[in-house]
Amino acid sequence: MPLHPDRLFPADPTTRAVARELYEKVRGLPLICPHGHVAASLLAENAQLPDPVALLVAPDHYLTRMLNSQGIEPSAVGAQRRDGVPSVQPREAWRNFCAHWYLFRGTPSRLWLEQALEGVFGVRSDLGPDTADEVYDALSEKLSTPQFRPRALFDSFNIEALATTDSPLDALESHARLAEEGYRGRIVPTFRPDDVVDPDRPGWVENIERLGEVAGLRIATYDDYLTALKTRRAAFRAAGATATDHGHPTAATADLDHAEAARLFDRLRGRRAEPGDAELFRAQLLTESAAMSVDDGLVMQLHPGSVRDHVRPLSERYGRDAGGDIPTATEYVHALRPLLDRFGSEPRFRLVLFTLDESAYSRELAPLAGVYPAVFLGPPWWFFDSAEGIRRFRELTSETAGLYNTVGFNDDTRALASIPVRHDVSRRLDCAFLARLVAEHRLPLDEAAATAADLAYHLPRRGYRLDDEGRERATRGAVA
Amino acid sequence: MPLHPDRLFPADPTTRAVARELYEKVRGLPLICPHGHVAASLLAENAQLPDPVALLVAPDHYLTRMLNSQGIEPSAVGAQRRDGVPSVQPREAWRNFCAHWYLFRGTPSRLWLEQALEGVFGVRSDLGPDTADEVYDALSEKLSTPQFRPRALFDSFNIEALATTDSPLDALESHARLAEEGYRGRIVPTFRPDDVVDPDRPGWVENIERLGEVAGLRIATYDDYLTALKTRRAAFRAAGATATDHGHPTAATADLDHAEAARLFDRLRGRRAEPGDAELFRAQLLTESAAMSVDDGLVMQLHPGSVRDHVRPLSERYGRDAGGDIPTATEYVHALRPLLDRFGSEPRFRLVLFTLDESAYSRELAPLAGVYPAVFLGPPWWFFDSAEGIRRFRELTSETAGLYNTVGFNDDTRALASIPVRHDVSRRLDCAFLARLVAEHRLPLDEAAATAADLAYHLPRRGYRLDDEGRERATRGAVA
Amino acid sequence: MPLHPDRLFPADPTTRAVARELYEKVRGLPLICPHGHVAASLLAENAQLPDPVALLVAPDHYLTRMLNSQGIEPSAVGAQRRDGVPSVQPREAWRNFCAHWYLFRGTPSRLWLEQALEGVFGVRSDLGPDTADEVYDALSEKLSTPQFRPRALFDSFNIEALATTDSPLDALESHARLAEEGYRGRIVPTFRPDDVVDPDRPGWVENIERLGEVAGLRIATYDDYLTALKTRRAAFRAAGATATDHGHPTAATADLDHAEAARLFDRLRGRRAEPGDAELFRAQLLTESAAMSVDDGLVMQLHPGSVRDHVRPLSERYGRDAGGDIPTATEYVHALRPLLDRFGSEPRFRLVLFTLDESAYSRELAPLAGVYPAVFLGPPWWFFDSAEGIRRFRELTSETAGLYNTVGFNDDTRALASIPVRHDVSRRLDCAFLARLVAEHRLPLDEAAATAADLAYHLPRRGYRLDDEGRERATRGAVA
Repeated sequence: MPLHPDRLFPADPTTRAVARELYEKVRGLPLICPHGHVAASLLAENAQLPDPVALLVAPDHYLTRMLNSQGIEPSAVGAQRRDGVPSVQPREAWRNFCAHWYLFRGTPSRLWLEQALEGVFGVRSDLGPDTADEVYDALSEKLSTPQFRPRALFDSFNIEALATTDSPLDALESHARLAEEGYRGRIVPTFRPDDVVDPDRPGWVENIERLGEVAGLRIATYDDYLTALKTRRAAFRAAGATATDHGHPTAATADLDHAEAARLFDRLRGRRAEPGDAELFRAQLLTESAAMSVDDGLVMQLHPGSVRDHVRPLSERYGRDAGGDIPTATEYVHALRPLLDRFGSEPRFRLVLFTLDESAYSRELAPLAGVYPAVFLGPPWWFFDSAEGIRRFRELTSETAGLYNTVGFNDDTRALASIPVRHDVSRRLDCAFLARLVAEHRLPLDEAAATAADLAYHLPRRGYRLDDEGRERATRGAVA
Repeated sequence: MPLHPDRLFPADPTTRAVARELYEKVRGLPLICPHGHVAASLLAENAQLPDPVALLVAPDHYLTRMLNSQGIEPSAVGAQRRDGVPSVQPREAWRNFCAHWYLFRGTPSRLWLEQALEGVFGVRSDLGPDTADEVYDALSEKLSTPQFRPRALFDSFNIEALATTDSPLDALESHARLAEEGYRGRIVPTFRPDDVVDPDRPGWVENIERLGEVAGLRIATYDDYLTALKTRRAAFRAAGATATDHGHPTAATADLDHAEAARLFDRLRGRRAEPGDAELFRAQLLTESAAMSVDDGLVMQLHPGSVRDHVRPLSERYGRDAGGDIPTATEYVHALRPLLDRFGSEPRFRLVLFTLDESAYSRELAPLAGVYPAVFLGPPWWFFDSAEGIRRFRELTSETAGLYNTVGFNDDTRALASIPVRHDVSRRLDCAFLARLVAEHRLPLDEAAATAADLAYHLPRRGYRLDDEGRERATRGAVA
Repeated sequence: MPLHPDRLFPADPTTRAVARELYEKVRGLPLICPHGHVAASLLAENAQLPDPVALLVAPDHYLTRMLNSQGIEPSAVGAQRRDGVPSVQPREAWRNFCAHWYLFRGTPSRLWLEQALEGVFGVRSDLGPDTADEVYDALSEKLSTPQFRPRALFDSFNIEALATTDSPLDALESHARLAEEGYRGRIVPTFRPDDVVDPDRPGWVENIERLGEVAGLRIATYDDYLTALKTRRAAFRAAGATATDHGHPTAATADLDHAEAARLFDRLRGRRAEPGDAELFRAQLLTESAAMSVDDGLVMQLHPGSVRDHVRPLSERYGRDAGGDIPTATEYVHALRPLLDRFGSEPRFRLVLFTLDESAYSRELAPLAGVYPAVFLGPPWWFFDSAEGIRRFRELTSETAGLYNTVGFNDDTRALASIPVRHDVSRRLDCAFLARLVAEHRLPLDEAAATAADLAYHLPRRGYRLDDEGRERATRGAVA
């Protein structure tokens, strides 16, 4: 449907008027994108973007999972199967997608895609069987023009900094190429070591070999292994990284003594693991990573609680991250204690927590962030990066954590074209939340405006050390 | 209080106007009642309904539990004790009930009863000590007239299909009698096998004997047992059943190999059970039931998470289902994996999940329904079939599961007279939710109207295969 | 900011008008304070209150925890370290606090402090670096006057009854002194036995010695110990107590046979505890306490689910209750069963449940309170005594527990000056909730008004037996 200027604002006229006023002050602020999954190679190569399906549908697991839930396989909307069974052709895939567009009523996918179509591509957004071909043709035509190449899009989006997500095994060649070219966009890597710290990952033992190679040392011992991680972190920092990211099944941390940790490493690497060893090793590595962050200043992000590859046919046919991951209950208070006992009050350390278990917001996460100097709350993640999810996040965390122990928004997207949409939705919803506080006389308008700017721009910039100034500086807000 | 035409709609004038418009389109749609507890014998016999207390108060555990919480025993409002201690007479019971009507402020019981009194019986609904006798007399008079016999009520309610809930041990005689008479109302049974699949039920071993008898075979082995279940399912299908229902303490499923399952059955039947056997057997039987559903097409419903008979005096004096059941935390993601690994992506299979643990809505249930072809969300159950409960359900599930992985409303009621009320409340609240999406420019009005009709009528009809067309047919919604 | 007369009311004009009307009827009702942490000595001594920092900032763990989360140590705002490291001087501490006032945007701390400054002290409430000194001076001046002595404040607050919280080891001398003086304010103790029933408390064994001393008997056996507890309860009742309070890590209860309980006591006291003994003892003591309450009529409160002293530097430097406690998931349904099996339906018994785990509201707590005669819900506790927290509590509990199985508001405050604010916020938010029911035609205005008065005044008075009439009397509400 055509984008309404008041979309996502509360209907009550008083509150809506305040929301509008707040939004006007933040809509134009530069985008800080400290956590995302756009590949640096996309910008380094700057090739023409693919067809509409390969760009917008097939790689979007929000879309393919919903279609799958109604019996439409990902290959029917263009996703490639690993077993060579061909997927349908792009135009047909687009038609299949548009025929099921009604499934997305009330979902964030609909908000995002409609706003990307109209806002980024300037094409009509009322999708459906009748408009499928017309929209497909219009998108295809746009994508063939220079204005829709990756760097042109990047430039038009007003992005101040964009973090990619990269394995320690990645040599960061695209980042290097961008730097050598003197590309003016700030594209920085993020150190995501799951491949080399999670013993349950297929190929973990081999990955450690490769880690040694890329770090330029032979890994014989646990100490070598830690050194290799530190070496790669230094390389990431040199390439501009300001953060690490850790995707774990749970939030468990451990603080083993060094000899015990070394024995655990040896058992796992020697394929002599005992039950619980893999989980304990991941737990230990979180604490080791925190120790490294205290030294090198990389902000540490933790994303726990996803049961990976729950839907067997999806993972078998399409591999990892194909939409079949399911959240599970996640405990933080006892799990994080070993790590927080050591580093939770370290001034140099910063731990950004995410969750897929909203019951932890008010019970565990807000209380932790509201007292530990090191702990900050990441924005609503994944399924909760949505109109209702963002509202619940603010309502459930703000009173205990405050607004200033959060780090603003993460778009967390694989899709370059969706970046401005994601930020716009977040800014609108934060303004809607603040507008309610104003309308209920819980916050004066001028402070709400300062806070809106902080949430949209200053907090992510400072929270992820993208302001190059460290964390100590306090603020009274951008506007105040 | 007199029924207001805008009851349950949001107060904001913009949103309310949309809610009204949506509701006008769905209020008159036929009622689909795919899950309930009205006895088929009520309609087969079509006897005069009992006095107001026996009809409206004593059997309603929502009412008796609340009164009990304030020290008013169920027998004081007409419920029969099992030990022969007499309950008070109906008129006195009604007076007791009306004297405590204030306890129900803010509860769904109040909404339902007021709307039934005024909407079905046409009597005043402002209950209290002063009006008790007047209302009692008015109700008694109505109930003595032919227009208030069960079939007359049924006819006046615009019910397209009504499912009862029945044990495999039930010979379905009332259903047969209705069929023989050529009764035009569609009354179908639902296969609820708890009596014969839950080894913790009193009399389980004896029930298996009776199962063999009613199925016409001698149950010696696990295979015989499964055959008997299939035989009864076939009989239920022949009587019009489209669904099964399973009430389990947890959502645990198992996928044992056949020999192991047979040994488990033998141990339990031979009263040689080991700890955990009963739970494992229930878990295995869910997967066996799913396998049968794949074959015979019966939609499978799962209602887990109730701790039965928590309040000892209630269960001792009044038996099962006397209002003393309490919900408990329920895990689905790991619990359902054995079953979903086998059947979650089967096109013929459909599993409708319910919960008494709202923290599972956004964390587990919506993600499961939003990706598995077989999984659908049942409506808010029991305590959550309420104004706030239905709102939370939509807010917490729609963005991830979508609206089309739900199956509309279940009235789940024992009380024939409450059926239209329950559906009306649900329709109003779904329209209120959709109206907010429209008012916030998240959904256009025409699509909201189509969705409202789907939620009220098409989704339950299709979801429970009451449309006789199977599940494959996609829809763009009733109105669009 | 200046206090707005409509603060905390919904913005929708219809709903706000109803909220205003309801609030007008309850704003002037006397305050019932059945659970709090003001020391009786404060009123007994009636000394001049300390400087603004020592009065309002340093002892308020809501404030110090938030400041700590941003790297500002409690000693920087005047809190005393146990290791003798000096804290900053009051005026400087106040300036530090005001410089970080923006951190409290959207928090209850801000609501409370602004309203206390303007409403109690009549000074400007727009805190910040620029106004710090001016406000400090104004507060200091007020505090030096007789009108701001404790008893003068108490008198001005319209408090009908104030319960303190006291250890069984406390001889209640301040209470005795107030009684001897014939002080007209009703100040009653509450029996909080954690010191002597929790074997994990430092000094538990010694505390039992002291318990014997203050109870006037030698504790050799478990029976002696129970006798001593009963003796102290009797002394508390004689001093006006109507309630006990129990702060436990979990809600576990047990019902051991007497010999087993005695052996458990002996093991723990003899420092021969086995794993699980301490938890089992606490569980047993809850059931023993319930038995005593059946006898002596003291209302039993249970506050479970806090992990104490999670933040090591805070507890090491500042001791207990320094803001470093974190909630954790809390199970009630199985945990309370041993106790409820014995006493849950006892007419004399009353158990008021609190939680730090909001997921238990609709799943466990409301269903328990909505059926057990003995169970009542305490108000939102600690982090949830807030605008959003109170709203969620009412929305999540009212439909199942009803409004009449709650006990109104507890201010739970250490700060005398904050008492009227806390009650005012609660009254406003309850009126806001009820106003929505009225605006949505779910409750008539006259019943909403009666209910508002019940929630604000009659329910806490009756629920804590501060009406001296016992619990049996039913009510139709204050206004009706």
